[in-house]
This record gives sequence, structure tokens and C-alpha cells, in this order.
Amino acid sequence: MSDLLWQKPGVAVDAQIQAFLAGDDVVLDREFFLHDIAASRAHAQGLQRIGILSGDELQGLEVELDHLAADFRSGDFVLDARYEDGHSAIEARLVERLGDAGKKVHTGRSRNDQVLVATRLWLKEKLARVAALSRETAHVALARAQAEQHLPLPGYTHLQRAVVSSAGMWWAGWAEAFIDDARRALDTLALVDANPLGTAAGYGVNLPLDRAHTTAALGFARMQVSPIYAQLSRGKFELAALEALGSATLDLRRLAWDLSLFTAAEYGFVALPAQYTTGSSIMPNKRNPDVVELMRATHASVAAARTEIEQLLSLPSGYHRDLQSSKGAIFHGFGRGLAALELLPALLSNLEWKPDGMRAAMDAGMYATDVAVEQAAAGVPFRDAYRAAAASVQQAGEGRTPEGSLAARVSPGAAADLRLDELRARLEGLQVPGT
Amino acid sequence: MSDLLWQKPGVAVDAQIQAFLAGDDVVLDREFFLHDIAASRAHAQGLQRIGILSGDELQGLEVELDHLAADFRSGDFVLDARYEDGHSAIEARLVERLGDAGKKVHTGRSRNDQVLVATRLWLKEKLARVAALSRETAHVALARAQAEQHLPLPGYTHLQRAVVSSAGMWWAGWAEAFIDDARRALDTLALVDANPLGTAAGYGVNLPLDRAHTTAALGFARMQVSPIYAQLSRGKFELAALEALGSATLDLRRLAWDLSLFTAAEYGFVALPAQYTTGSSIMPNKRNPDVVELMRATHASVAAARTEIEQLLSLPSGYHRDLQSSKGAIFHGFGRGLAALELLPALLSNLEWKPDGMRAAMDAGMYATDVAVEQAAAGVPFRDAYRAAAASVQQAGEGRTPEGSLAARVSPGAAADLRLDELRARLEGLQVPGT
Amino acid sequence: MSDLLWQKPGVAVDAQIQAFLAGDDVVLDREFFLHDIAASRAHAQGLQRIGILSGDELQGLEVELDHLAADFRSGDFVLDARYEDGHSAIEARLVERLGDAGKKVHTGRSRNDQVLVATRLWLKEKLARVAALSRETAHVALARAQAEQHLPLPGYTHLQRAVVSSAGMWWAGWAEAFIDDARRALDTLALVDANPLGTAAGYGVNLPLDRAHTTAALGFARMQVSPIYAQLSRGKFELAALEALGSATLDLRRLAWDLSLFTAAEYGFVALPAQYTTGSSIMPNKRNPDVVELMRATHASVAAARTEIEQLLSLPSGYHRDLQSSKGAIFHGFGRGLAALELLPALLSNLEWKPDGMRAAMDAGMYATDVAVEQAAAGVPFRDAYRAAAASVQQAGEGRTPEGSLAARVSPGAAADLRLDELRARLEGLQVPGT
Amino acid sequence: MSDLLWQKPGVAVDAQIQAFLAGDDVVLDREFFLHDIAASRAHAQGLQRIGILSGDELQGLEVELDHLAADFRSGDFVLDARYEDGHSAIEARLVERLGDAGKKVHTGRSRNDQVLVATRLWLKEKLARVAALSRETAHVALARAQAEQHLPLPGYTHLQRAVVSSAGMWWAGWAEAFIDDARRALDTLALVDANPLGTAAGYGVNLPLDRAHTTAALGFARMQVSPIYAQLSRGKFELAALEALGSATLDLRRLAWDLSLFTAAEYGFVALPAQYTTGSSIMPNKRNPDVVELMRATHASVAAARTEIEQLLSLPSGYHRDLQSSKGAIFHGFGRGLAALELLPALLSNLEWKPDGMRAAMDAGMYATDVAVEQAAAGVPFRDAYRAAAASVQQAGEGRTPEGSLAARVSPGAAADLRLDELRARLEGLQVPGT
Repeated sequence: MSDLLWQKPGVAVDAQIQAFLAGDDVVLDREFFLHDIAASRAHAQGLQRIGILSGDELQGLEVELDHLAADFRSGDFVLDARYEDGHSAIEARLVERLGDAGKKVHTGRSRNDQVLVATRLWLKEKLARVAALSRETAHVALARAQAEQHLPLPGYTHLQRAVVSSAGMWWAGWAEAFIDDARRALDTLALVDANPLGTAAGYGVNLPLDRAHTTAALGFARMQVSPIYAQLSRGKFELAALEALGSATLDLRRLAWDLSLFTAAEYGFVALPAQYTTGSSIMPNKRNPDVVELMRATHASVAAARTEIEQLLSLPSGYHRDLQSSKGAIFHGFGRGLAALELLPALLSNLEWKPDGMRAAMDAGMYATDVAVEQAAAGVPFRDAYRAAAASVQQAGEGRTPEGSLAARVSPGAAADLRLDELRARLEGLQVPGT
Repeated sequence: MSDLLWQKPGVAVDAQIQAFLAGDDVVLDREFFLHDIAASRAHAQGLQRIGILSGDELQGLEVELDHLAADFRSGDFVLDARYEDGHSAIEARLVERLGDAGKKVHTGRSRNDQVLVATRLWLKEKLARVAALSRETAHVALARAQAEQHLPLPGYTHLQRAVVSSAGMWWAGWAEAFIDDARRALDTLALVDANPLGTAAGYGVNLPLDRAHTTAALGFARMQVSPIYAQLSRGKFELAALEALGSATLDLRRLAWDLSLFTAAEYGFVALPAQYTTGSSIMPNKRNPDVVELMRATHASVAAARTEIEQLLSLPSGYHRDLQSSKGAIFHGFGRGLAALELLPALLSNLEWKPDGMRAAMDAGMYATDVAVEQAAAGVPFRDAYRAAAASVQQAGEGRTPEGSLAARVSPGAAADLRLDELRARLEGLQVPGT
Repeated sequence: MSDLLWQKPGVAVDAQIQAFLAGDDVVLDREFFLHDIAASRAHAQGLQRIGILSGDELQGLEVELDHLAADFRSGDFVLDARYEDGHSAIEARLVERLGDAGKKVHTGRSRNDQVLVATRLWLKEKLARVAALSRETAHVALARAQAEQHLPLPGYTHLQRAVVSSAGMWWAGWAEAFIDDARRALDTLALVDANPLGTAAGYGVNLPLDRAHTTAALGFARMQVSPIYAQLSRGKFELAALEALGSATLDLRRLAWDLSLFTAAEYGFVALPAQYTTGSSIMPNKRNPDVVELMRATHASVAAARTEIEQLLSLPSGYHRDLQSSKGAIFHGFGRGLAALELLPALLSNLEWKPDGMRAAMDAGMYATDVAVEQAAAGVPFRDAYRAAAASVQQAGEGRTPEGSLAARVSPGAAADLRLDELRARLEGLQVPGT
Repeated sequence: MSDLLWQKPGVAVDAQIQAFLAGDDVVLDREFFLHDIAASRAHAQGLQRIGILSGDELQGLEVELDHLAADFRSGDFVLDARYEDGHSAIEARLVERLGDAGKKVHTGRSRNDQVLVATRLWLKEKLARVAALSRETAHVALARAQAEQHLPLPGYTHLQRAVVSSAGMWWAGWAEAFIDDARRALDTLALVDANPLGTAAGYGVNLPLDRAHTTAALGFARMQVSPIYAQLSRGKFELAALEALGSATLDLRRLAWDLSLFTAAEYGFVALPAQYTTGSSIMPNKRNPDVVELMRATHASVAAARTEIEQLLSLPSGYHRDLQSSKGAIFHGFGRGLAALELLPALLSNLEWKPDGMRAAMDAGMYATDVAVEQAAAGVPFRDAYRAAAASVQQAGEGRTPEGSLAARVSPGAAADLRLDELRARLEGLQVPGT
């Protein structure tokens, strides 16, 4: 490792301790190295605006930051254990190439606000992606709801056959779920859209930093005013972002459960294209829906990331090194969460219903509620109609068809009145940045 | 217990099993019994609008629901183990008093949407309370930030003395934190502000229920369109609400940590009024800041409630009895969370700084950053200025005072430029329902 | 509330604050009031042995503690909000009835070790119950494994049909699972079987307390030596106990999942007696396996209790009031966990297989592994045999029966060699206290 | 990636899907590749014993497995994305080098029991390490307790000064804590010490596998009899292991809290060698105890790993692909947990007390309990003695010294009677495998 920024003469550095301190920090920093470079540029611009850097120095820094970004993208610059972290690497490169101008770039800045701003930009990007994928999922679901609104599907409660439902209702349910998930991701994006750069180590500095400039230059909606709060938001905003992601992955968990059952031979409602399945090392007959199972497992990783950060945050105000662990946690949670959501729209487009299996699972009792409600509509007090229907469940299906049941299901949102236009309007009302 | 709504002849009911099934459900239902009554009234109105109930029947039901609410409030009606749950209790009372009209009230409704709508109303109320208390907390913090902006307070990172800070910065930090918490509670309130009534058991019904009416009558911002999604939102919305609460209780945990340290003899920065402390059963000398400690402990209860619901929600779509456990969880989480937040504004108003203790904890090294930044402003590359300051830390305080350090801290948000007006504007921009 | 033990003159006590401090503590204390009384008796005996109490005083205290226990059991003494907590209630009663002897009983004791010892006794009792119920569950499972070893049951991986299995294998699996759960509960019981009484507020006292006597009198296996550790074990031992319980409830969650599927119409493998099911408020045709679903939900409550305590335990050594919340958590976790486990042995005894449904779910591919392994036994390299079998999956069933497949499954532990004697020996080797 | 074991002709494999399926599995498999090789050897031996492999074939396989292990250790063989996973890599190498003998090695084995047995061996190794490090920590603590038994240290409850304590008491507390942690790790090691090899995909096979041989050859204490249970134990045993680790890291969290406070200037009780501290990028005056803070943060990572696995385990019996995520979770939890515990004994050996700071924090009130108890010993009812002492707290210190208070603290386990021999005996009674 190169010299540590803060290292003082005469202090021996023990290798095992250094490894413990470093953890996989420098590798994680690759994730937001480009964000760190972008924020360093904005900070340098701000320094020039208050006279700390000359115009030439700024120009030199901007050119060199561009080079560094290009080298990083191309692989010519590798962020690895030679550096304490990504922040140090940027400064080291600038000092090496530019001398004094490089040594000036950290004026009025701490690694504390440096990591905050890079993480913040990263979180915004990821939340926008959650919103975009949730929106895309809802879009697929709405299109299929429209196309398959008359296709009967058994409806269950308690995993017991309940009433006739439809593919249209099922799709519309997921559409509304992911519309809300997109909305939540956007709300959260707006909540965290605050610039912490310029708060230094949590107490500000004795320089009139141009925070309005960096806020605008980095595209933040507002300044995070208080340096104390900038530190308090470390972890807090990460949690909020993971919780928004978790809203989508929790819906995904339940959706994957449906598909896991529907693809079981006992249900036989859904066929998945072969690329979503795998085989067994010992059983020649198996085709397993592994993609669906790993989608179901995804939320556990998001929840783990939440746990890791939440448990850290039992601390007084101010920065503590404990918070370093939050970095790996968000990469793990968003890494897994987005990988699963990326595959979801195509999987939903590609799944095929097996109408025969769906029809075979309809039984007479599934019309009993229709019968009771019809009686109630005809004037029989519902509780009496219910008891009468319960006494003759097996006769409930006489003269009835799934299609007839669906056609009569006229309560708003039900099979005969899905209100897809309303959902479509909500979906179109969502403004996802960068899309 | 009275007869079960769904009980069929000839099925023996085992007492221990019934106790297991019932849990403490009926006791929990007291929490939202009035919400259930309000929703029952809206549902009855809707039934009259589509001809299921006559005008007279509706009037009778409304009068009787009023009586029931009044009896419940006065204690003349006790919701207890005589009933399977609160929902059954309402129907039983209406049938007992009104006969057929009572038997009609459940037409087109299931206990599934009944519990959803009552819980939804309850969650909205609680989220509004979180927002109101967060706002009140921010208000107190802003007022004290203004009043105490020049009072020096040591600033720490890693619990090590770092730089001079101020009471004003500390208060402004908490103000901005709770402004964001209020905002998040309001965002969440808006997210869950959707009417599930009229979705029945998750598949709608064969009746043209007037859901637009119930949505308006109950004050919901929109209809939850899909019956499938109404069921999927059970637990999902509870989690979102707990997460919003958790944002505030997590900040409270960190604030309580500060106070726990600041009231320790070793710090001696803060005195709490005696009513916030308790004594020991064995040690005559003790005055313990128990209120602060229980505030710190509060988030654990909110987190526990989250865990309980999140772990349940690994299920296919449709209702499952597992979800019953979510009820106790939200009562526990919001019960503890709000109890702590209710006490917070007054505690913050009442705490007293001990300026001598605060001043005693300032040491010379806390000016070293000022020195280095001053040098940087004078043209010395920061990294060189830093090294020079590090070499003479003990001289850093020469000729310096806490007040001088604060007066020079001009970066936006720092001691000399707290930007309380900006925070005040954000606070005033928050619209909390019912306040 | 009666006067507080530690109250000092002139300190106003605010009602809302007192309510927050008290929480539901005194109600929770009912759970281990008898344990507290038992430990108070042992402590008094110890005090007499070192001369703090006279023989007469001890006798008076023992008689009065007996009365109090009897009054509590009969309901003549109600532990309620008149008291700060159960500990204060005992002392108050003894002082009221016995005067000075009552005032002496707290000599050398703090509420800190008082609550520790009562909780410890309670945890031991509950862990013994977990062990006993796990053992009973394993016993039922072993008996049914023996009886139903030849009954074919489809075997699944990924919820996809895999190979022929048997009811015997399924039962033997749960038997071994619950044997391990019983073992773990017993290990944990032994771990926590250490007496904290006599450690006072975490620093011991200037009295030669006879801790050897109280350790023996209360039936502890060893003394918890260090007063510092006694405090550190608050929460730590509760977590260990919940984790042992959680081992059983996690197995129960998976068992309940099996039953939830097996009772679904699509599987049709299992019938549950009617008392384990409930009906619907709107759908006349429903019989829902609510008991199984609530069993599946149970682990979430145990996990919530874990979370609540784990999150509290980010604290320095020594007692902190935060720990009070651990009390409600263990009652919630063990309350729910044991309620579910209590019903499990009978439910397992009572469930009925539906052999026709089980047989209908066997398809030809489920013999393909048998075919490949047979070929391998005949000398074909397994990977080649596997590929050959994969190419003719539909022919795999020719001339084969479920019974034949089971009879050939001779690997140790498999259908033809269940090794129930080995499991029975392990089960019988478990020594559950009090059984 | 090489051909997939189970791949069937004509199934297109989508790259993004394959990446999602693979995750970082093959990289994770490096962790237990050597365990997998060892288990493959034992399996091959078992196959030879039942005639599936000839003696020559076995010998060839053993030699080649040795080569593979040596190549892996030396870096000549790299386990990377060319392989689906580590299991496939072993088989591929054996087939490549040995032809038919390689194709036979998977006879009677599934990747399911292959991953189970490798993970099991890994868990045993890690649990032994937890036990060894806990024991070593306890050893250091006991030695320092002995050496520093007369060194006064302030004792706190609620972070408020309570009574005089000693370094000896503090060390003895941690000693007993880590003795229990070592015990728990050993109990857990014994619980998971069961051989799953030979259970195939969870249903056994139609071969008389010699499981007694593999159990003995791999050093397992017993056979995991039931194939169904072998699958059920996936995740369950990982959780048990993480919980045992968590017991130690939770104690570490509290120990790190003590050190974090004790090294704060406000306490000034402890000095850490410089190698355990780091500096700041902006504040020249800082030396931060980062190692202690990262130790405090460690438990959060263990808790995250627990969450990840626990949330997965809401599944029916049988293997599901969801369980793949448990692999990364245990590596993360044990990786972080052990890294921190590895540094602990040396850190504890190296920390230095600052007796002046410790003495400066003693105040008169800290003797009030001594006074009250003395009075009680002299016959004054304790509650009266307590009230008298409370009325004159400031006089409690007259004529008293910390040393005097400690010398009188004679209750078993307290400063004057630490009972280190008892703790030492317990420590020596722990048998850690491989040490």
C-alpha cells in the first residue's frame, strides 16, 4: 500500500491489523469510483470559485480527472490494494501528475463527505434503476392483463380453492404492486437527493465553500444543510434505499412463489422457457425452475443488507469507523436485488399459461360464493344466503362456467371491470430520471 | 365464544386449538374497532347506493353503529373473548339489534377487506402522528439552534475530540434529521392512502359495489384497484409504515446515545430534569437517565415488528392465515415507537447544557484543522499544510478560542452560517393531515 | 403506584413519563413472579446463613413468601400497576406483613440480580419444555415412520417431481430433525444453568453472601461467578434460548409448508381433522388449514423476539435500562413458539394420508435415477448411464412400481434401510429435566 | 463455461440468465474446494468397498485428487468461471485425466450431498476456530485479572458512576463470557458433527453405500441418518454455527464499546498501541481507535448472514435453489467474525490502563452502597440503611479509599474473591479439536 495520507512518522503498522482495517474497501470503492471522480471535479470547481485554486489549476485537475476516469473505464488504471481506498487513490494520482494542484484538491473536504457524496450519487442511480425496472415490470403485466383478461385461473386463499379468478386479475395485481414499488423508489430517490459535499468531517470548515455550485453541478435537488446531519444520514439513507428496493423484492418473492407453484406438476398452470430452468447432477428427469427460485431468494439478500446497516447504527452522532461496513452491504443488496429485477420483465413476457391445467383445477365449490351473493342481490339477507350455499356446495356449479363467473364479477377492479386504464394512467404518471 | 360465522354442524372444536387460532386477536382488534365501525358504515352506504339495503335499513345500521361506537368508547361494550374477532362482533351486534338488516351488512364484503380497510385507516392515523411528532421535534430543535448558536460544544469523530462545534450545529443537525423523518412519514402515508374496501376475499364479487363512494367517504386519496393487490399489500404496507417510523426511531436511537454520553459524569455536558431519571434499589447514590435509555431501546421494538412481518411474507399471492400475526406486530412497533416520540419534544425543551463541562473538554488539538485550512486559504497546498499542522498539534490552540473557531466556520450549514431559515422553510412546507 | 423504592423527596414524577418507564413491566412480571418468590426465599436463607437474618426472621419470611405465592396462584393477590414491578411488590408485601424482617430481605441484593435469577429459572423451564415437546414430536414421527415405511410418497426437489419417496422417509426426516432440536434445547439449558443471584448490581457486595447455598437451593448446575458477566449475560442468554427455540420453530415452518401443500387440492396427499380447519366469512365452500398456517407463522414471532434483544445489545458492559425490553421479547417469542409446539404432536398423530392422491402424483420420470444407478452398478460409468437415462426418461417407468423403487433404496437412511433403531437410541439418550 | 453436467441438447442458454444462476458460486466454492476434494476421496473409497470402483480405479482417483488439491494450493489450478461450480470442476478434471473412472465418481452421489458434506467440514473447522479464539481470549483475560486484581476501576450502571470496581473484576467478566462462548462453539460443533454424504438428492439411492466408512474417514462423530433431514439441515446448521459465532461477536461488541469509551479523552482509562489507531484525512490532530470500532461493527455482519439464511428457510422440505445464497452468507459472517476474533487476544494483551484517569473518576457517592450494606450487616434493616445513606451521599466517601472498598467486596466473584481458579478450571475443561 502506498503511504497512508494520515500516517505519522514512527508508528509501526502491523500487516494483519492493516488487512483488517482495509477489509475489501478498495475493491468496493471501484463501484463508485466514477462518482467519486465526478464529485472531485465539482469540489475543485467550487474551490476555484472561492479562490483556492487558480483557473489553470482547475483546468489541469479537470483534465487529469477525465484521464483517470478514462483509464479506469479502460482498465489501464486498476483500483487495488496499492491504495488505502478510492479517495486516496484519486488524490495520489492528482499529486503525482499535477504536484501542488493535486495537494490542494482536498482543501475543505474530508473523506467523510467524499464518501457520502459518492455513495449518494450511486444510490440515486440505483434507485432510478429500481424505479425503471418496476415500471417495466408493471408495463408487461398491464399488457398481459389486457390480453388475457378472459382467461380463467383458479383463485386461492390459504392455498385452498376459493373462487374463479382470471389471468387478467392476476396480472393486474402485479401491475399495481410494481407501480407502487416504482413510486416508492422515486419517493426515496427524492428523499436522498441532497448534497452532502462541503460538510467535511461533520462540522464544516473555515472556508466559504460554494456548496450551491456543487449542488447544482452534481444534479442534486437540494443541499443537505447541516454537517451534523450529513453524518447522521450515513446509513440512514442507505437503509431507506434498501427498504425501497426491498418493497420490490418482497413483491418479487411472492410472485416467484406463485410461479414456483404454478410450474409444479401438481398445478401445471405455467410453462417456463427452457433457458429459465436447469438440470440435476444425479436425476436425469429433472428440469428445475432455478431462476424463479433464485428470484424468490433475492429478498433475503436485501434483508441481510438492511440488517447489517441497521445493527451498526446504534451509535452517538458523528462519524465512527463502524459505518465502513455499510458499503459492502449496499453493494450486496443492490447487486442481488437488481440482478433479479433485470430478468423479471422478460421472464414475465415469456411465461406461457397452460389453460387445460388451469381449467382442470376448477371445482364446483368455487361457484358457491357467486350463488350466495346472487341470493343476497335478490333480497335474501347475506348471512342466510351464505348458510344456504354452504349446505349445498356441490350443487353450486350447476349450469355455471368459469367464463360466466368472470363476466359477472363486476365490482371495480374485479375480472369484469379491471380498470386497467386507471392503472395505466398511474404508471404513465411516474417520472423516472434518465429514462 | 359465540357461534363462529362459518361454523358448520358436526365439527367438534377443540379448546386448545381454538385458543391457538384466536391468539390475542380480539384484544388487538380493540385498537381499530372504531375504524372497523367507520368502514362498516361506509360499506353499508355503498350497499344502499346499489340497492342491497333500503334507505331505512341503512339508517338503522348507521344509528346502531353509532351506538356501538359510543358503547365501546364508554366501556359499556367490551370487545373480548366472547367474539372470534372485532369483525364478527360488529356483525353479531347488528344482527342482534336489527335482524335482517344486520345479516345483510356483510354482503359483498369479506373479513379480508374488512381487516385491510380498518388497518389502513389506523396506519394512516399513526403515520400522521409520526409526522406531527417529528415536526414538533424539529421545531424545538430549530428554536434551540437559533438560541444557542454561539454556545461552544466539543465536536467528535470516533468519540475522539475532533474540532470545536456548537450547540447550534448540534440542534440544527437533529432538526434536519426530523424534518426528513416527517417528510418520509408523509410520503408513506400517501403511498398507503388507497382504499381496499370492496375487494372482498381478494377476487372481487359479482356486485357493482360503489367503491368510489367508500373511497371518498373514508377519506382515501385513491382506490386500491386490484383485489389481488389489496391482498398483496397486507404486510407490505405495514412494513412501509414501520420503516417510516423506524427512520425516526433510528434517529432517536442516535440522539439518545448522545444524551446518554452527555449526561455521564465523564462528559458532564447535559443535565436532565429529575423527572426523566430514576433511582436504584441498592445504590443510594444513583440517578439514572432511564427515559433516555428506553428511548434508545425503542428502535429495537420497531425493528422486531418489521422482522415479524417480513418473515411472514414468504408466501404465494392470496390470503393466508399467517398474516394474522402482522396485527400484533404493528401494535407493538407503533405502540413503543410513538410512546417514545411523544416524550421527545418536551425532553429536548427541558434539557439543560452545562457550559463549563463543555468548555473543559476543548483541547488545543481541536484547532489544528482550522490552522491547516487557514494555511491552505493562504496558498499552501492543503496536504502540506496538513502535515505541518500535524507536526505541531499542541501549538494549534495558541491565541485561539472556541468562539473564534465558530465565528470562522463559514461553510454553508456550519456554525457561522447555520441556514436555519432554509430548514425552517422546509419544515413549514410539510403538510401533516389533521394538524 | 405505591411509593417507589428509590424515590427521593421533592422530585416531581410526571405521569406520562412514569407510564413510559413502567411500560407493561408489572404485567410481564406476572410470568415469573413465582420464580422471583422462590429466589427470594433462597436469598433469605443465604442471609440467615451469614447472620443478617435471625432464624425467626427467616421463618417468618418463608411463611409469608408461601402465602404470597398461594395468594398469587389463587388470584387473591394481583400483581398490577399499584407496583413499580414484581420485585418491589414482593418487598412491599414483606415489609407490610413483617416490618423489619421485610426491610432486610433486599440486603446484598439488587433488582439487577433479582430479575436475572427469576428470568434464568424461567428460561430453564421453557427450554425444558422445548426439549420435551421436540422429543414428543420425534416420538410420534418415529412411530409413524415405522408404521408407514412402505407407503409411497412422491419425492420432490425444487417442488418438481424427483424420485419415489415414502411416508416412512418423510417421518424419519422430521424425527431426526426434532431429535436434534431437543438436543440443542438441552445444550442451551445447560449453558444458561448458572446462578446469577448474589452478584447484586454487577459489582458484588461487601458481604460474604452464601452463593453456594443459593446455587444449590435453586437447582442451578453452577454459579455464574463474575458479577460483571452476570450483567453481560442479560440478553445474551435470552438470545441463546430463543435461538434454541428457533431451531425447532424453523423446522416447524418447513413442516407446516409441507402440510400446507399436501392439504392443497392440487396435491391431495393429506387430510386434516376438521378441528384444525376454519371457514370463511364470505365463501361458503372453504375449509382452511389455519392451524397449519399459524404454525408456519410462528417462527416469525421467535425471530422478532431475537431481533428485539439483539438490537438492544449494542451497549457497554454494566446494566442499562434498555435491557428492560428483553422481558417482553422472551414472553412473546416463547409464548408463540410453545403454543405452536404444544399442538404439534397431536396434529401429527391425527393427520391422515390419502394414498390415492400420493400414487397419482408418481410419473415415469421418477424412476430415471433408479435406472441410471442400476446401470452404474452394472459397470456403466455413471455419467454415461445418466446421459442414456436422460435420453429416455419416459421409458424409465416400464415395469417399475413405487414399491419396487422403495425396496431397492438400500443406502443407509433410505426407504429400505431407515435405521429407526439408531434414531430411537438417540431419542432415548436425551435426558429432559422434570420428565 | 464448460458444458453443464445436466445440459440437454437443443436448449439455448441465455448469457444473462446464466450469470444470474451462477452468481459468484464458483468463487465461493474456492473456500471449501479442499473439503470437497477430501469428501470426494472418501466417497470414492466407499464406492470401491461396494464394488463400483476397482482398486486400480480408486488408486487413480486418489492420486489425481491429490494432484488437484496440490495444484489448487499452488495456484496451478484456478477455480473460476470456466466451471459451473466446484463440484463440476472436480468431476471434469477426473474425467479429463482418468476417463471412465472419473465418470464413475458421481455414482450414488448428488451435488446436494456433495455441497452438504463440504460445507459441514468447513463449518466444523470454523467452529473449532471460534472455540480456540474464545479460549485464547479468556486465557488473556484471566491472566490480566490475576495481575490487576487490585487496580481500582470505576464501576458504572446506566453509564452513571455506581460503585468502585476493579480491573480484575472487569477482566474476570470477559473471561467468563468467552469461556461460555467457547463452550457454545463446541456444543454447536458437536451438534453439526454428522455426516450427510451418501444421502444423494435427499432420498438416498438404490445402492448399499458404505456410509459408515465415509463417516469414519471424514472424522464425523455420527451419521446424519435421514436423507430428508440431511436436506432439512441445509441452512439450519449454518444458522446454528452463525449463532454460536454471534455469541462471541456480541460479547465482542460490548467489549469494544467499553474500549471505545475508555479510550475517549473524557474517560481516559485506556491507551491503545498506535498500530490499532488511524488518522484523519482532514484533521491533523486525530488518532482514532478504528480497530476497536470495526470490532464493534463485526456482529452486524454476522447478524446479516443469519438474516440472509433465516429468510431463505421458509420452504417445504427437499432441496430448493434458494439455498444457494446460504453459501455467500456463511463466508461473509465467518470471514468478518473470525477476522475480528483473530486480533482480539493480542489487542487485549497490549492495551494499557491509565490508573490516574481511572482514579480521577471515583467520587464520594460510589461508597454509599458500601455504607448502606455495612449498616445492614450491623443490624439496621437494609431499606432503612439505604434511606439513611441516600440522605448523606456526599459524606459516603469519608475515610474511604478505592482499595478499601475492593478489599471488603467479599461476595463470591467480587473483587476480594474473584474465584479465578474456578474459571481457570472451566477453561481448562474445554476440549477444542485440533489444538
